[in-house]
Amino acid sequence: MRQITGETKLFGILADPIHHVKTPQRMNEHFARANYDGVLVPFHATPDNLATVLDGLRKLENLVGLIVTVPHKTAVLELCDDASDTTRKIGAANVVRREPNGRLTAHMLDGEGFVRGLQSGGHDIKGKSAYMAGAGGAANAIAFGLVQYGVSRLTIANRTVAKAEDLKARILDIHPQAHIDIGTADPSGHDLVVNATSLGLKEGDALPMDVNKLDAGQLVCEVIMQPEETALLLAARKRGCAVHYGAPMLASQIELMAEFLGVSNSK
Amino acid sequence: MRQITGETKLFGILADPIHHVKTPQRMNEHFARANYDGVLVPFHATPDNLATVLDGLRKLENLVGLIVTVPHKTAVLELCDDASDTTRKIGAANVVRREPNGRLTAHMLDGEGFVRGLQSGGHDIKGKSAYMAGAGGAANAIAFGLVQYGVSRLTIANRTVAKAEDLKARILDIHPQAHIDIGTADPSGHDLVVNATSLGLKEGDALPMDVNKLDAGQLVCEVIMQPEETALLLAARKRGCAVHYGAPMLASQIELMAEFLGVSNSK
Repeated sequence: MRQITGETKLFGILADPIHHVKTPQRMNEHFARANYDGVLVPFHATPDNLATVLDGLRKLENLVGLIVTVPHKTAVLELCDDASDTTRKIGAANVVRREPNGRLTAHMLDGEGFVRGLQSGGHDIKGKSAYMAGAGGAANAIAFGLVQYGVSRLTIANRTVAKAEDLKARILDIHPQAHIDIGTADPSGHDLVVNATSLGLKEGDALPMDVNKLDAGQLVCEVIMQPEETALLLAARKRGCAVHYGAPMLASQIELMAEFLGVSNSK
Repeated sequence: MRQITGETKLFGILADPIHHVKTPQRMNEHFARANYDGVLVPFHATPDNLATVLDGLRKLENLVGLIVTVPHKTAVLELCDDASDTTRKIGAANVVRREPNGRLTAHMLDGEGFVRGLQSGGHDIKGKSAYMAGAGGAANAIAFGLVQYGVSRLTIANRTVAKAEDLKARILDIHPQAHIDIGTADPSGHDLVVNATSLGLKEGDALPMDVNKLDAGQLVCEVIMQPEETALLLAARKRGCAVHYGAPMLASQIELMAEFLGVSNSK
C-alpha cells in the first residue's frame, strides 16, 4: 500500500472483537487500485464504549467514514444523525459517512451487497421468487435488498414467526406493492433460496431449512462466509441445485462502501 | 509497509493543521524496520475538539498511543491521567501511552530527543556549559534535557525575562543542584549554543542572539528544521563555529517514542 502522510484520508472499521476483520485488507487494496490516498484501520470498540468512541471520531477532521460490523450495526444507527428511510426500517447500518460539518450519515449496504454479489455471479433476481430463512440482522437487510431489486415475491421463514411478521410489515411500509409471505421450513416453489440465519457458522449447527425439499431448478445462496462450504450448500449440491457462496456479498460491498464514502478513482 | 489487518496495533498523531506532519512516514518506516505489526495514522483534531477526541480514542482497545504536536502539547497534558514529574514541570507532552486499562500516560520527549540528536552527531554534552535562547514550548523541554544529561551550567536567555526565571525555578524544583543563570543576547563563554526560539522559521526573522559574539570554539545548534540552513547557522559557520541541524532531534525522537510506547523489535 502507498505511504501514509499527513494528507492521507482516514477510514476505520468498528468491531468487537476486531482481530478477524478482513475489511482493512480489502479496502486498502481498493484504495491502491483506485490510486486513492486513504487508509482504513481497525477501531476496536466495545458496546459500552461505542457512543464515546463515535463522539470522538466524529470530531476528527480527516475522518471520511467508518465501516461498522458485529456487534455495533444496530447501536450505531441510533448514534448517527441521518439515515435513509430504508436504513431506519432495517434498523441497522454497516457504513457511516462523516459529512464535512461533522454530522454522521448511516447507511446499510448488506442487502445491496448481497444482490450485487448475486449479479456478479451471473444471477439476475428481477422477477424471480425468493425464499429466505431468517429474520435477524443479516436477513433484514437482505429482504429489503431482494424486494428493492425486484423479486416477484418473497417468502420469509423464521422460527419466531412474530419476527418474520414484523420484518414483513416494515418492508410493506416502504414497498406497499411487494408480495410477501410468511413461510415454513419448506423452501420448495421458489427460484431463489437464501440462508440468512447464522446456522452453519458452527459445526453441528442444525440446517436452516428442510433440504429434502430443495430441487435442481433452485439457486441456493449462503450469507455465511466461514466455512465456505456449509452443510446447506453441500446438501443443496447433492440435490442438484446451483449454489452461491457467502463471500461475494462482502466483495461487492467494498465497492459499494467506497462509493457511499465518496472514494474517487484518481488513476 | 506491511498489510494492515484486524490485529494491527493502532497509533496516531494529533495535530492541527495535519497535512505537513512527517511522523506517519517516519514511524511507519520504524515499524517496518522492527517488523512490528503497527500503523500510525494522522488524527486531525482542532483545539476545541481535543478533549472529546481524546475521550473517544482512549476507549479504542487497540490504540497503543499517540504522538502529539502543535498546538496540542500543553493541552494534552491536562487531559491525561498520569505524567512524570519532569513532564509536569515542563508543562507539555508530545507522546501519550494508552495503558491496557484505558488510562493515558503523557510524556515529553523533546528534550531527550534533542540530546540524543546531539549524541548521534558525535556531540557529548556532559560537563559542557550551555547557552539557550528561548523559554517557550521547545525551550522548556530542551532546558530540562540539557540539565538532566549533565551540562555543567545552563544560561537561559529570553526577551521576556520573567519566562526565563520561571523556567529556571521549575528546573530547580526537580534538579536543586543545577547551575542555572539568566542570560542576555550574548552567547559568549559557553561550549554549546542552542536556538530554542522559533526565530529563523520565517524569512526576515530577527536573529535569536548576537551572532557577532559567537566564536570558533562553540557548537551552535538549531531546533528549527525548516529551513535546514537558518540565518543563525549561516552566521555561525561564518564565525567558524561547528553547527548542528534541527532534523536529528526529530529522528532521535521516533526511536524514543517507539520505546516509550512499547514497540518491540520482532525481527
